[in-house]
Order: sequence, then C-alpha cells, then structure tokens
Amino acid sequence: MKKLVNRPEDVVREELTGIALAHAGRLVVHTDPHWIARGDAPVPDKVALVSGGGSGHEPLHGGFVGPGMLDAACPGEVFTSPTPDQMLEAAKGVDGGGGVLFIVKNYTGDVMNFEMAADLAREEGITVEQVVIADDVAVEDSLYTAGRRGVGATVLAEKICGAATEEGRPLEAVAGLCHTVADQSRSMGVALTSCTTPMAGRPTFELGDDEMEVGVGIHGEPGRERRPLASARDVVETLAGAVVGDLPFGDGDRVLAFVNGMGGTPLMELYVVYAELHRFLQERGITIARNLVGSYATSLDMAGCSITLLKLDEELTRLWDAPVDTPGLRWGA
Amino acid sequence: MKKLVNRPEDVVREELTGIALAHAGRLVVHTDPHWIARGDAPVPDKVALVSGGGSGHEPLHGGFVGPGMLDAACPGEVFTSPTPDQMLEAAKGVDGGGGVLFIVKNYTGDVMNFEMAADLAREEGITVEQVVIADDVAVEDSLYTAGRRGVGATVLAEKICGAATEEGRPLEAVAGLCHTVADQSRSMGVALTSCTTPMAGRPTFELGDDEMEVGVGIHGEPGRERRPLASARDVVETLAGAVVGDLPFGDGDRVLAFVNGMGGTPLMELYVVYAELHRFLQERGITIARNLVGSYATSLDMAGCSITLLKLDEELTRLWDAPVDTPGLRWGA
Repeated sequence: MKKLVNRPEDVVREELTGIALAHAGRLVVHTDPHWIARGDAPVPDKVALVSGGGSGHEPLHGGFVGPGMLDAACPGEVFTSPTPDQMLEAAKGVDGGGGVLFIVKNYTGDVMNFEMAADLAREEGITVEQVVIADDVAVEDSLYTAGRRGVGATVLAEKICGAATEEGRPLEAVAGLCHTVADQSRSMGVALTSCTTPMAGRPTFELGDDEMEVGVGIHGEPGRERRPLASARDVVETLAGAVVGDLPFGDGDRVLAFVNGMGGTPLMELYVVYAELHRFLQERGITIARNLVGSYATSLDMAGCSITLLKLDEELTRLWDAPVDTPGLRWGA
Repeated sequence: MKKLVNRPEDVVREELTGIALAHAGRLVVHTDPHWIARGDAPVPDKVALVSGGGSGHEPLHGGFVGPGMLDAACPGEVFTSPTPDQMLEAAKGVDGGGGVLFIVKNYTGDVMNFEMAADLAREEGITVEQVVIADDVAVEDSLYTAGRRGVGATVLAEKICGAATEEGRPLEAVAGLCHTVADQSRSMGVALTSCTTPMAGRPTFELGDDEMEVGVGIHGEPGRERRPLASARDVVETLAGAVVGDLPFGDGDRVLAFVNGMGGTPLMELYVVYAELHRFLQERGITIARNLVGSYATSLDMAGCSITLLKLDEELTRLWDAPVDTPGLRWGA
C-alpha cells in the first residue's frame, strides 16, 4: 500500500489533527466524538446545516464547513458512517435556535444514524429536519444503499442551502430548497482504477488494465457495467447521456455542470472532460450557466470522474454565487 | 494507460479548451501560440506577472492567472517548456506600461526560452525582468536542470508578487520581492509512485511496491535516494529535516508551511503530513504563521507530496493574505 500514513487505524484521527491545526480559528475540531464546526458556531437564530459521512471523500464534508456552507460535519472512519452521538453533539453544538437541517447522502448506515440522531436531538428540544440526497442515476440499489446513491449533488446542496441559511431563511424553507436541489440534480461516475483504503491496504476491487467501471459508486461499489477503456469523448457521451436522459434535462435548460475528480485524476483530464461535456450539452440546447471543475467528492486515490448536472433557476443561481468561506470552496461577493 | 483523454497528442489543446470554457470572462485563452491571460489584461500601469512551464503541473501555472496573482501563463506541452513566441506574445499582451516580470522555474529549457523571450520583448520596447526559482534542496544538478530545481516556492512567489503588483509597486521592487521569496524558500518532495505522461503511456520511472523516491523532481527526475516505504512521520522527518537544515530555518522563525500533493495523493494524507510537519517544526521553535495544504504544483497522477517552507516577515505575510481571485487560489479581503 502506497500511502502517506502512520498506523492505518489512526489515519482519521491524525487527519483531523492536521485539519484542526491548518484551519485553527476558522474551524474547531471536536474530539470524542469527532465533529468539525465553524469557528463562530452557533450563529444565533440561523438555521444550522450539518452533514457528514465516511472519511475518504475529502474535501466533502469537513472541508465545506464555514460561513456560507456547513455549520458542522461529522467524519466517520474511512468509508464508514459516522455514529449518532457525533451527529447529536454536532446538532447541539451548532443549533443557534433556528433549528438544524441534516443533509444526508443516501447510504443505509448514514440514513439510519442521522435518523436516530434526529430523534435524540428532538428529545432534547432541538428542531431537526433531514433531507436525503440520492442523485446517482447509475443503479437503483447498491452495495450499501436502498434506492439511488448520494454523490456529487451533495456538494451543490451544501453550498446552496448554506447560502440560504446566511440569508436568514427559516428551517422549513431551507429544507424545501434542499429538496429542490436534490430533485433537480443527477449524477453518474466512472472509475479507471480502484481505490485502496488504508486499513485494507489493497485495491477495493479488481479492474483490468484495459477496463473501466461505468456507474461506479464513491466507495468502489459496482456500477452499471464494466467496459473497455474509452476516449474522454465516449466516457462523456455515456455519463452525460445517462444523466441528461434521467431527469430529463432538455433544450432551453440552464444548468450547473460539475465535473468532479475521484481523487487520482489530474485537473488536466477533468478539463478535457469539461470541454467534451460542454460540447455534448450545447448540441442538446442545454446551457452551462455555472460550473465547478475539480476534486470535491473523492474516493481516496481512485482515478475517474463523475458528472453532476443541476437544473438552475434564478434563485439557485443567486445562492450558488453567494460568498462562501470554507477550506474547500471559497469566494467573495 | 488509464487516462480520461482523447488522442494523447491533443490533450493540452483540449485541456485549454476546457479551461477557456469553464472560466470564460475571468480568463482568456489565446491560441496559436497558447497563452492564458486574465480577462481584464492589460491592467494600465501595473507590473505584469508572467509565468509558465510544461503542462501537467496544474493548477500551476494557468490556474493561478487572475487578479492578485499572474497576469498570464504560458503552458507548454506535457513536461515540456513553452516556447519563446508564447512568452513574447504573453508579455506583449499583458504589459500595461509597467513592465513585465517573468517568474521562471529553474529548468534548462524554461530558463533558456524565457531569456530569449525577454530579449525579444526588450527589442519591442517592453521592460522585462526575470527571476529564477530554485528551491528544491534535493539535488544540485538534475536531469533537466543546472543547479537546483524550481518547485513549490513558485506558487508562493506568484501569489506574493501578484499582490505586490496590485499595490502598484514598480517592476524593480516586485523583482526584488520575488528574489526575497526565492531566497527565503526551500522545498523537498517524495514520490510513492511514478507519473505517466499521456504520450508515453507508461510510468516515467519504475518504483517497487515497497519503495519511495526521496527528493524526486516534479517530472519524476531521480531524487537523493530510493528507500523502503516509511511512515508519514518518517517521511516528514526526512523532507522537513532537509528543508530546515538547508536555509537554515531555526528557533524563533515564523514560516509559511506548504504541504503540496503531487496529484495522486488524497487530501486525507496531506493533512496527516501537515500534522507531522507542525509537530516537527514546533519541536524546533519554528512557528507556522500561514499554511497551504492541497495539490497545487502537481506531477500528473504521481502519488507523493512535497514540503515547502518560506520564512515570513510582516510584509510577506501581508502580501500572502491579500485578496486573490484565480481558479486555483481564491480568497477575499
């Protein structure tokens, strides 16, 4: 295993130590249990956004904590759901009286644990809503999922809902907005290589030198099919074709196009993919009004990418453009 | 070869198409020859910063074009110096009357071509200064270099000098500042895997499953020694030890600590390295006043990292903190 780690069982704890040191003041990393909060939490009267999931997808979610995005993130062990006590402590810690929205990727463990945490938080008098993101069109059920998996749209939901909380919108409205983002987003990914978790120390799955896994999950779950390696153009036709056909997206739509690297794929290739995606959408009368190109929802060292499209309206566009100040996404007014 | 590309010989051109589409308005990508300019160039009377080098190190340099950083970048083919005509066109295009500073990583081809371009630009009446960055302490001469290689400090020089140009400083002062950053910075890297260029289609060098290359160059050039894989702590002791001992950095110093991913290494591992670096420096009385953790000067899909330290004073710190608005580095006031 070729990783810059010490003992594999310490990797998440040591990563969180690094995050705490690198972003001191802007983020606070709580231990026992682990949760990451923005430095000024709780923000009085603001709806608090909390997300989380297994580690190994960084910057998702801990790298998206800060003004304009998440109030807190709960990191689990690598590719393992965080536990309800993490979510409960986070909810209690960041609730400023406006209530808490849990944004949850659709994996069985995550959904169950966030539901349990919501119940516990409500018992302590905190108002909690929960929205599940399930944007991956590749497969209906999967290794760790009933229904579709939650992937790239989570990044967009966290950004857009974060902006809405900064505007002082009430919990019901922010939850409604999160449902809109979830409903209007679709994604699909491809893996050129497996990933390797530090504990396992060997590739999660086997993939031949001339093969790719189309529709792969962000933990290396099987996709739709295994195919011979193809050109960037062919890969985009497959991924974007499935995404566009599913919602469907069509002539006249304005979208946010998100080309996401899985971790091991250079920016160079992501821009080649973006160029192909632009061409593909233009041919169908779909306009890219906003875009995001980079490795934001990763799968450790996996090579590959995913494409997420979000159908935009004026409000979603404005909220996307609003200032954000997190380690992973940062821009001014 | 597992890459999201079409024809390998088209990868840089297609990447630049993607960059142009993704950052339309903020960046302008010129073709024939290739150079990337900030959308509002030339900025009247401002010193113009121009850099460039082989492609494959993204976001360096094209991703650092924009207000507060570079005015233009010249991308060569993969791991190949750009040509003097690219640099000349860039200099002519972004000179707003304040003159042009070329920031050049120390590789023989780059230095020669930037020198030639400087001569040509001067013949056309443009004032040009040139600063060579040679911060890699690993080896004295290397495969493509006389003297030390230029690596991570280039990112810091582009950011800090960019801020100085925005303040209206004259060319001589900006060049002096760039020399200061170059003089006060040291770096060293490690590779856990080779990279693979699209044209070659196979790893640039061979590295055993249980080996790492200590002091590797950003094109996969040989380093100081090949060693058995070690823990993150041991790797940091080696890299930071060499860096600290070289300048030297010592008790009471305040530094910018830059943990740079080579492309194939997840953020998780970079934060583990950062935590170890923090401990290492703290034990020596060296304070990290600013930090940067992420993949900013990459080597395609190489797994590994580099550590760069820059000795800070008040002025360098203030210029580092100044607003920047580029695809690769972006923050407000």
